[in-house]
Amino acid sequence: MYRPQIKVIDCTVRDGGLMNKWQFEDQFVRNVYHALSEAGVDYMEIGYLSSESAFSRDEYGPWRFCAEEDLQRIIGDTEKKIKLSAMADIGRIEYDDIPPKSESSLDMVRVACYVHQIDKAIALAHHCIEKGYETTINLMAVSTVGLRDLNEALEDLNKSKVPIIYLVDSFGAFYSEHIDTLGAKYFERMPDKTIGIYCHNNQQLAFANTISAIINGVNFLDATLYGIGRGAGNCPLELLLSFLKNPKFKVRPIIKCIEEDIFPWAKKIDWGYSVPYMVTGVLNQHPRAAMAHMESDHQEKVTGFFDSVTTE
Amino acid sequence: MYRPQIKVIDCTVRDGGLMNKWQFEDQFVRNVYHALSEAGVDYMEIGYLSSESAFSRDEYGPWRFCAEEDLQRIIGDTEKKIKLSAMADIGRIEYDDIPPKSESSLDMVRVACYVHQIDKAIALAHHCIEKGYETTINLMAVSTVGLRDLNEALEDLNKSKVPIIYLVDSFGAFYSEHIDTLGAKYFERMPDKTIGIYCHNNQQLAFANTISAIINGVNFLDATLYGIGRGAGNCPLELLLSFLKNPKFKVRPIIKCIEEDIFPWAKKIDWGYSVPYMVTGVLNQHPRAAMAHMESDHQEKVTGFFDSVTTE
Repeated sequence: MYRPQIKVIDCTVRDGGLMNKWQFEDQFVRNVYHALSEAGVDYMEIGYLSSESAFSRDEYGPWRFCAEEDLQRIIGDTEKKIKLSAMADIGRIEYDDIPPKSESSLDMVRVACYVHQIDKAIALAHHCIEKGYETTINLMAVSTVGLRDLNEALEDLNKSKVPIIYLVDSFGAFYSEHIDTLGAKYFERMPDKTIGIYCHNNQQLAFANTISAIINGVNFLDATLYGIGRGAGNCPLELLLSFLKNPKFKVRPIIKCIEEDIFPWAKKIDWGYSVPYMVTGVLNQHPRAAMAHMESDHQEKVTGFFDSVTTE
Repeated sequence: MYRPQIKVIDCTVRDGGLMNKWQFEDQFVRNVYHALSEAGVDYMEIGYLSSESAFSRDEYGPWRFCAEEDLQRIIGDTEKKIKLSAMADIGRIEYDDIPPKSESSLDMVRVACYVHQIDKAIALAHHCIEKGYETTINLMAVSTVGLRDLNEALEDLNKSKVPIIYLVDSFGAFYSEHIDTLGAKYFERMPDKTIGIYCHNNQQLAFANTISAIINGVNFLDATLYGIGRGAGNCPLELLLSFLKNPKFKVRPIIKCIEEDIFPWAKKIDWGYSVPYMVTGVLNQHPRAAMAHMESDHQEKVTGFFDSVTTE
């Protein structure tokens, strides 16, 4: 029996764009948008909400900004059957650059933050609520947060007006037992919040840990087409939809979109399981050293990489 | 705290050989043997035990047979620090062709069977026990076995002298909840047996389900280097050793062996997650249709594959 409260958020364009500076053709984004709509996915996270002053349009594609005119080119004249979300990073978006909801096709703004930014994140999320948006706060890299700081952050989030709080395994370091323990703590400290999960796939556990989160009562689930994303990538959407029992979800449009739109990208950019990403996941480290290694001309020299990150 | 009863069995040569008819150079097998020994892995499953009359040596490499002279070329004059295992399929090995343990470097024979072969499997395993070997029975494709047949098979196995019984997810169809339910049933019906787990990676769950099995008390764990194996492959050994806490396990020799010996094979043969294998996993089907598709000249046409296996 399915749980109707479960919502699926696809982050293909937002997280996949970390690999190509959001240089996706409009047609690609449009195809993903229509495939997700047809598949019954609840939200499409289409990019980051950034001020034009924070990044150059010469270097970054439109989904670094998610301006209304960009969104309109994707939606076109079709009936909008999927909610649109954008992620906001602390310090890269000015309050005044966020349009009121009435002037935007975005439905949700998700504020990503590290634990030391929690007050700024709550303030930004409250601002977005006042402007009419659904909001979440995505507390990143929680695998590196000590107990005292975590308790305080969760207390602050619990007191906030933000209704949805994410547990984010930024480094792909968690096993299912971590999800059990942290899930229990999130629900204990924030009994009235909806909890979300975002997993990276460094240890081939993104899908499995998402299942563990579901079992623990987590209802907002993030995934991407074929797991596309930075480094080891994310929970594959096609696996997640196949697992979920809600009859509104259809996997065929996702498979078709993977064939037609994701496979061509798989020839141009690398993501997915590999030894360096696995090593940083096991060590609970940011994947930046692994990403640098994978972009080098000696990416197969994985023993040297292992030595470089394990030797003091 | 680690569980000293846990044993790890590497199946790189045995299961990887399904992809190349065991045409591995001796040096490859020797390198794997030494890497596993150095890493503290408990068993190396080096191939299948088959009668020479069952297969042609012109077509199949030595690890289809595991003759003593073949084993000797791998072990050489070095001290044997790892146990050797071979798998036996019903009907492909004559009793008389199994040497007594005193004349063999093999320590363990694992009998693989489907549920309708359980009596033959027990008889073969008992014969191997009499000849002095450790034995297991690996009950394959348990995801397709109905409750009545499963209960009877587990009762029969419980009455047998075989000390170790495997739960095998041949089709990569299981979620962690299946492992919980079946694990509980295996322990309930066979309270004095040691239980093992073998998972395929069709849904990126081989490692996760192995962890679920560990949590459920399963102590014999199968894996392969970098997940090498037929179709979607297996639980990656480097992930499993990194998870296990027994200080005797070392992951560096495994990473080095992946770099030097597995990466060259990855250029020659395909294994790992792909849409067709995911689809047969979700449908709880044998991967043969997916394997045929992946060997065709239209392997990227995954929507057509999806339609072909989901349309009546």
